[in-house]
Amino acid sequence: MSRRTRSRQEWEVRASTLAKKTTNPIRRIVENLQVEPNPDKELIALSIGDPTTFGNLNPPEQVLQAVRDSVELHTSRGYAPSKGHYEARAAVAKYSAHQGDISPDDVILASGCSHAIELVITVLAESGQNIIIPRPGFSIYQTLALGLGIIIKYYNLLPNKQWKVDLDDLESQIDDDTAAIVVINPSNPCGSVYDKEHLSEILDVASRNRVPIIADEIYEHFIFSGNKYTAISSISKDVPVLSCGGLTKRFLVPGWRMGWVIIHDRNDILGKEIRAGLMNLSMRIVGPSAIIQRALPAILEYTPQSFFDDVLFFIESQAKLAYDELRRAPGLRPIMPEGAMYMMIEIKISYFPEFSNECDFVERLVSEQSVFCLPGQCFDYPNYMRIVLTIPEDKMREACQRIIIFCKEHIVFSEKRKDIDKEVSMKTDVQVICDNDITRVV
Amino acid sequence: MSRRTRSRQEWEVRASTLAKKTTNPIRRIVENLQVEPNPDKELIALSIGDPTTFGNLNPPEQVLQAVRDSVELHTSRGYAPSKGHYEARAAVAKYSAHQGDISPDDVILASGCSHAIELVITVLAESGQNIIIPRPGFSIYQTLALGLGIIIKYYNLLPNKQWKVDLDDLESQIDDDTAAIVVINPSNPCGSVYDKEHLSEILDVASRNRVPIIADEIYEHFIFSGNKYTAISSISKDVPVLSCGGLTKRFLVPGWRMGWVIIHDRNDILGKEIRAGLMNLSMRIVGPSAIIQRALPAILEYTPQSFFDDVLFFIESQAKLAYDELRRAPGLRPIMPEGAMYMMIEIKISYFPEFSNECDFVERLVSEQSVFCLPGQCFDYPNYMRIVLTIPEDKMREACQRIIIFCKEHIVFSEKRKDIDKEVSMKTDVQVICDNDITRVV
Repeated sequence: MSRRTRSRQEWEVRASTLAKKTTNPIRRIVENLQVEPNPDKELIALSIGDPTTFGNLNPPEQVLQAVRDSVELHTSRGYAPSKGHYEARAAVAKYSAHQGDISPDDVILASGCSHAIELVITVLAESGQNIIIPRPGFSIYQTLALGLGIIIKYYNLLPNKQWKVDLDDLESQIDDDTAAIVVINPSNPCGSVYDKEHLSEILDVASRNRVPIIADEIYEHFIFSGNKYTAISSISKDVPVLSCGGLTKRFLVPGWRMGWVIIHDRNDILGKEIRAGLMNLSMRIVGPSAIIQRALPAILEYTPQSFFDDVLFFIESQAKLAYDELRRAPGLRPIMPEGAMYMMIEIKISYFPEFSNECDFVERLVSEQSVFCLPGQCFDYPNYMRIVLTIPEDKMREACQRIIIFCKEHIVFSEKRKDIDKEVSMKTDVQVICDNDITRVV
Repeated sequence: MSRRTRSRQEWEVRASTLAKKTTNPIRRIVENLQVEPNPDKELIALSIGDPTTFGNLNPPEQVLQAVRDSVELHTSRGYAPSKGHYEARAAVAKYSAHQGDISPDDVILASGCSHAIELVITVLAESGQNIIIPRPGFSIYQTLALGLGIIIKYYNLLPNKQWKVDLDDLESQIDDDTAAIVVINPSNPCGSVYDKEHLSEILDVASRNRVPIIADEIYEHFIFSGNKYTAISSISKDVPVLSCGGLTKRFLVPGWRMGWVIIHDRNDILGKEIRAGLMNLSMRIVGPSAIIQRALPAILEYTPQSFFDDVLFFIESQAKLAYDELRRAPGLRPIMPEGAMYMMIEIKISYFPEFSNECDFVERLVSEQSVFCLPGQCFDYPNYMRIVLTIPEDKMREACQRIIIFCKEHIVFSEKRKDIDKEVSMKTDVQVICDNDITRVV
């Protein structure tokens, strides 16, 4: 036998670049926080974007029955085609008719929406190319792109214009290496919902620069009263849209891992290459669990509207509650969401001289009041924090009270503050600071 | 608003290299075959590696009940940790104790075994590095590696030594860029089962060259009588082994997509980097469906041994049946498997002058006899074909009869043949050619 040994005499097994650069910014930031709750107060986590966490929100009976039935089916046990069973893809096409004219062949099933996003990023962008995502925005894009050498660029959302897109900024970010623009609507973490007119403006930018759109629509139909949801694909004249959705949030089953990509390409710009590429990529993990695939037609067909209405009514009520309460927290400015299940809250950090940034703020909020909110850094947006709106009402009320106490205990209207902000220095009473329109004052 | 447009004036959206290079060689080969069955005969597909296809093999009641119970659990609906719920990982650790000392932290759950394989390839190998896989071997490695720029090299298995590894060939393939050796045991497509001694020889090669092993053990415990299964990790002294397994085949539920990676690293060679890298990679799709995760402890604990015994008895009986029958097919040489659920059959292609290769052979076998076998090309192994052993007995018997008829109709003992093979030319009677030891004769 050959006794040739290779030049490596010692063991040295290194992780790949892809593995090392696949990171979750939220986890990294949270792990670096000191989050030791006050032992005298029960922890209230306003940080977790999983609507099932608190046990108060459950999928409807029809959804559970669809899965029970699927378990009994012989055909839910074998391999499904990588892109998914035809019947399941047809059900998604029908369910998503508001997005435009869709055939089952335009649908690729995925193992949750994060897998759907992985598929679309990976098919469109090459190492060295970039995708442009909103700031603040959800961190999954960094998690999925950076390891593959795909560059993340940002366009700003405008907090004082209900988080609309800064269109000039968006257009200025586009370059020859831009592979896609990501539009998250309704937005995580902002809860904003874009109207038809604004979506048209975004499409105009994409169209004249010839950039396809990735539409992250996992919160579609999470629309509070007075707002109307429009799928960006439904009004696109030429821009190809790859829409990512799933059961996850709306059906309250994120752990089931059922998502999908819908290809909208009216002018046949994507051609066979992108479709074939998505099929290829779906082979890597051979699609989502067939139990849920087989249940999907019944889930999408038989879930009653009353279930959706009830969940949405609850979330909107929570949003109003939190907004009304936190307007009274000195130094904070909650921004009322129009949909999804989150609220962003500005922390006027200069009023809290003990804290150098919002991470300090949320750390102390945990250690003193046992309330944990996600710092804005998690969304590349300092001086804000995000709360979830899906927790039980009594907990939400309690959390808001504790936040108000915390702010009152730590806010400082010092001479220094006055130097920094002369307008405010002339009206140093808490009432002004408490107003949610504080940004108009300071 | 800025009216800057980028240099691209026309739409041109291209698929990434990763998407284009993620291909399934089996699908490509099969799609290029003319597989039009004979309309007068029912098609018998001996090609499909899904034991649930024919409806004759079903998971046991205990497995179904575990999933039914899981559907009712509130905790099967929310996000699981990316690497999987602790209880599920603990159950895999216990179930896999024959592989060595395993803690729940050594287990990462995956969305089926192909996702497990994706995780381990992707964490160990960088673009430009290579992994060495067996020939014949399963094509998922090409599907997963090539798109990432990871190079596939091959080591030969020896058909006349029950598909043992050609150790010299294996060692000669290792170079400075080798990231891992893949060992598939029991083997798809060969059905070989390596004994402890042979596994030690493979480990010796890996050890002195400092190359970790990826153990593809999805067919573990599929061992026919007279053979004994040893997990390569259980006898490794130093070589780190990343073992990939899952429910898929043994529990007859490939569509459920539940697999796992087990990290075996007694000498702490992988260190934190590979573990952290696997965790990172598992975040990309946030793990497998929580319904199956929650069912996993009961599935692994309560499935009775009699179920496994019955399935294995059936498959082994089918192997014996097919072997005994196909020995009588002139020009073929079936190689009796020792495990898994496949059999490789050599086609002495020079006896079939109508066919230039085994693809021609299987095409005509379909068009005349409506029996479809996978050509060896699918496993980088020409002049062979693979059959599955999980189909109902009557179909298997019928398929074998048709194959025998086909061979008898097409085999030619011409003057030309005699010129090529003088030994055989002296005993041109079908009896000799039919013998399974034909290779010893020719």
